Amino acid sequence: MAFVTEDNLSDLAVKRWATAHSPRLAELMTALVRHLHAYAREVRLTEEEWAAAVEWLTATGRISDDKRQEFILASDVLGLSTLVVQLNHHFSADATPATVLGPFHIDGSPTAGFGADMSDGIPGTPVFITGRVLDLDGTPLPDVVLDVWQADADGAYEAQLPEIDEARLRALYRTRADGTYCVRTIAPRGYAIPMDGPVGDLIGRTDISHFRPAHVHFLIDHPGHEKLITHLFREGSEFLDTDVVFGTKDELIVRFTEEPAGSSPDGGTIDEPYLRAEFDFVLQPRRTDEPQP
Amino acid sequence: MAFVTEDNLSDLAVKRWATAHSPRLAELMTALVRHLHAYAREVRLTEEEWAAAVEWLTATGRISDDKRQEFILASDVLGLSTLVVQLNHHFSADATPATVLGPFHIDGSPTAGFGADMSDGIPGTPVFITGRVLDLDGTPLPDVVLDVWQADADGAYEAQLPEIDEARLRALYRTRADGTYCVRTIAPRGYAIPMDGPVGDLIGRTDISHFRPAHVHFLIDHPGHEKLITHLFREGSEFLDTDVVFGTKDELIVRFTEEPAGSSPDGGTIDEPYLRAEFDFVLQPRRTDEPQP
Repeated sequence: MAFVTEDNLSDLAVKRWATAHSPRLAELMTALVRHLHAYAREVRLTEEEWAAAVEWLTATGRISDDKRQEFILASDVLGLSTLVVQLNHHFSADATPATVLGPFHIDGSPTAGFGADMSDGIPGTPVFITGRVLDLDGTPLPDVVLDVWQADADGAYEAQLPEIDEARLRALYRTRADGTYCVRTIAPRGYAIPMDGPVGDLIGRTDISHFRPAHVHFLIDHPGHEKLITHLFREGSEFLDTDVVFGTKDELIVRFTEEPAGSSPDGGTIDEPYLRAEFDFVLQPRRTDEPQP
Repeated sequence: MAFVTEDNLSDLAVKRWATAHSPRLAELMTALVRHLHAYAREVRLTEEEWAAAVEWLTATGRISDDKRQEFILASDVLGLSTLVVQLNHHFSADATPATVLGPFHIDGSPTAGFGADMSDGIPGTPVFITGRVLDLDGTPLPDVVLDVWQADADGAYEAQLPEIDEARLRALYRTRADGTYCVRTIAPRGYAIPMDGPVGDLIGRTDISHFRPAHVHFLIDHPGHEKLITHLFREGSEFLDTDVVFGTKDELIVRFTEEPAGSSPDGGTIDEPYLRAEFDFVLQPRRTDEPQP
């Protein structure tokens, strides 16, 4: 190696990281060095800005814990999370599109029967979300698990609330023999992303709207099909066209119709008016040339 | 805003961050979004790799504290720190070149007289570093403060040692009326960067040498001149050509000559053999068209 000059530095750094033992790590690291150096050269990064970036990154790591993931939030608001989803889920146009996971999913939700209420006692307008899970050719898929979660009317997910010891606004539903599912919950509302951390600090120095439109999260991981991580958005809700995490997609906007008290979509009765949304999830078959995980 | 597709996503994200209130922040953030998206598209970043990056960044933040700055170390080993120094310190060829600050500088070191021993009782071979501080035209500069720090023979800086309550291997020297200075310390040795954190984990998956060559740090911030942050490296020491933080520069490599016991360069005497290094620091005058800090 020659000693370092401004001219040879970036090449030297690339060559060094090319020695990574795994070819993929070498590819990832050399491209990272190239882009990082190109960025610093293009903006002529000052030492004060570099130091501010180090501080910002450190604060972002230090505020993150089991319940809060500020780096995922950062990735979300920079559009990176949506980009990674799009790069990795090239579904056909007829399949339900994927969108971001977000930082609030919790594994191991309790199972819930057809039409069981995952909002159990939490204030809000009752909603039934019903429909089918279908293969790309329209065949209904029985026994598919739908992992569903959402925020409460204040915009808070269970993952953001301290000292919750039972599942809150999250459950695992399952399709019946005819491919139908029925989720009962409360109407989702738009909400602000957490603004008290380094990501909020950055957003606050722009005109970017820090709200997400009303939505419910779904994760469907069914054998033989691509894992689908998606949302359903409520038609007409605020912030649909300025979603701070770039999650909104046309195909995922669903009408919530007002229904009177009386019979409910799960075959039972309900003694107050409710909202109803209908949506069929269409799964993309897994390509057989891909290694199974 | 239109809803998000793979084609329009990066443009939408750039446009959004262009609303930053400060033009410079808008420039920094839009360039960041462009480079980040270009990187992810180029390497076709997988969701697992994205999740691993989130984890790595979080761990890097969480291991950092008042005494340890793992993000600076990351910037160092990626060559970014050296690049930022080079972008911001275009000194003329006759001035002493700058190199990285590193994560171990501590403000407010005690003052030390001409030839005072900053290694005070710490084991090692005695070294006198002597020379002058000069203006670019060769004029000696009196009363210039040299902030000097180094690692001990085990490679440990004070900042890395818990429960140290007095300054250790660091001091502020001052040039005399004729521009001369005299530092007494112990011979620096090559050392490994901390390998027990996320940066070490990454380096360990490559053939990159994780050592730095023997060096002493100097910071000279004199009115009317560009701040100089630099090292002196010991000629012939190991790792000069593989310095893990890309800090070595030809002009900063200095011969350490062996001297017998007897008279010492500070005008006194020493009862054991010692090493002597001579180096004149040449400061770059500050451009008058620049705003003073």
